[in-house]
Amino acid sequence: MSKALFENITLIGIGLIGSSIARVVRAKGLADHVTIATRSAETLEQARTLGLGDAYFLSSAEAVANADLVIVSVPVGASEAVAREIGPHLKPGAIVTDVGSTKASVVKQMQPHMPDHVHFIAGHPIAGTEQSGPAAGFAELFDGRWCILTPSPGTDQQAIARLTGFWEACGSKVDQMDPEHHDLVLAIVSHLPHIIAYNIVGTADDLETVTESEVIKYSASGFRDFTRLAASDPVMWRDVCLHNKDAILEMLARFSEDLSSLQRAVRWGDGEQLLDLFTRTRGIRRSIVEAGQDTEAPNFGRNAPKTDVPGAPE
Amino acid sequence: MSKALFENITLIGIGLIGSSIARVVRAKGLADHVTIATRSAETLEQARTLGLGDAYFLSSAEAVANADLVIVSVPVGASEAVAREIGPHLKPGAIVTDVGSTKASVVKQMQPHMPDHVHFIAGHPIAGTEQSGPAAGFAELFDGRWCILTPSPGTDQQAIARLTGFWEACGSKVDQMDPEHHDLVLAIVSHLPHIIAYNIVGTADDLETVTESEVIKYSASGFRDFTRLAASDPVMWRDVCLHNKDAILEMLARFSEDLSSLQRAVRWGDGEQLLDLFTRTRGIRRSIVEAGQDTEAPNFGRNAPKTDVPGAPE
Repeated sequence: MSKALFENITLIGIGLIGSSIARVVRAKGLADHVTIATRSAETLEQARTLGLGDAYFLSSAEAVANADLVIVSVPVGASEAVAREIGPHLKPGAIVTDVGSTKASVVKQMQPHMPDHVHFIAGHPIAGTEQSGPAAGFAELFDGRWCILTPSPGTDQQAIARLTGFWEACGSKVDQMDPEHHDLVLAIVSHLPHIIAYNIVGTADDLETVTESEVIKYSASGFRDFTRLAASDPVMWRDVCLHNKDAILEMLARFSEDLSSLQRAVRWGDGEQLLDLFTRTRGIRRSIVEAGQDTEAPNFGRNAPKTDVPGAPE
Repeated sequence: MSKALFENITLIGIGLIGSSIARVVRAKGLADHVTIATRSAETLEQARTLGLGDAYFLSSAEAVANADLVIVSVPVGASEAVAREIGPHLKPGAIVTDVGSTKASVVKQMQPHMPDHVHFIAGHPIAGTEQSGPAAGFAELFDGRWCILTPSPGTDQQAIARLTGFWEACGSKVDQMDPEHHDLVLAIVSHLPHIIAYNIVGTADDLETVTESEVIKYSASGFRDFTRLAASDPVMWRDVCLHNKDAILEMLARFSEDLSSLQRAVRWGDGEQLLDLFTRTRGIRRSIVEAGQDTEAPNFGRNAPKTDVPGAPE
């Protein structure tokens, strides 16, 4: 087992990400004491039933009093309220971080409420599933995934090193970049894919000529892949759209331009343009699999071949 | 083991679908004799090495001479050439079908070349993976998936029943509809998702501000889901786009309209519209999982939780 990296960790928000952190901290003994806070009494009770922590609070202010590391895992639109609430109660030397999917907005919301005697380092573990809530988390969620930290210039290097060590102990690899670049990168790798997925599922839902039953029955031909992302937490994703507007609009504009060009190729039967695009996109998947960021099993392994060799005839 | 449903089955084309049919026919003893034809000598040799059939031909005409059931599994743009080649050599009473992803075009290409003494019934098993070639197939590919037949009015009912029985023996459930409706349904559940996936991967590939290495490293945040469909066979998908143009353009137009509306909601910060869409799309995924058309495991099961209960602290 690893040695405890922090005496007291406080988790504010105990959904998919927060509860996965709780589990990996427990599993690897990364803290002596885990305190959990969420403003929903029902969620707090779930966390208690699941045994995710050692102490439970509805008030974030009370929960952070002894914390050496505070991890805020709430929809990004709630960051400022949390920061305002915990700011006056933070212990000198505490490290405060978050896990939000946008970073410039979170820094802008939280930094002003952080007292000088704490180390605020915004962060984003690039990991998740389409499920939500404390029961959805699991200790292996961060295994082999990247975590991006976006510290402001002048942040204490030792604090960054400690937080880096924490994420590495959780199984992650850690990168640093500035918040604006993070938001641009995530706009293309995460925000645009989710928006596109939500959109296509909405389009299919609105058709008069194809029934919902048909969409469901024949979804294995491609559509089902999009429904996973489109089943993600609605509040989280509303907030992402509201808090990374510029980068998302930029990526949406590029996507739409490209789609218009592709649409034109379909309309005019330009087989060469189609074949060119459809060929060059294969390489990216190969690189993702080689980088260990996805399985190489067909259909993501959800219907892996059970036999490799054809069976014998009767 | 099931009883053989046909004495002689000929498979024309032995890629992912053809070779999966070969495997399930073998595994379940659905034919006494399997003949394989493909115009690529290299692919034919692969099929022979894999032991997928009993006889191997480069000429489709020769391969169909004794066939009771002929299954054409080639890119839809090659349908007419195959039909023209095999037409004069088909045995009276033979059933001829295909597995193409578009149906109106295939019927138009093949029907005129079918002699009166055979039963031509176009079909489409809604199953596949992103992989291609004879080595990619597996016997369970059709398990629990739908197969759509689009027989012309007046087609012999006994022939339809025999072909239905064949697909059921392969593990499929069978539906019938007219070719035009098939093409509309598939345009939304399959063709649009593939085009969108190819497009977004292309957009990401073209960015100057985000490196390919960043796209790959952080792809687990959503993007990787799209790369699977975008790794599908380029020639097959070029042909689908060229042969289901009208339905695809209709669905692309609806998708783009909806995306413009969503883009506007992002630009103007309309959280209510965003939340409304993001909430209603969840139900469709639930229905797909309930219908057995996808796994309920998070992330399609590719990183299934290994532990359910948090580990004990040190």
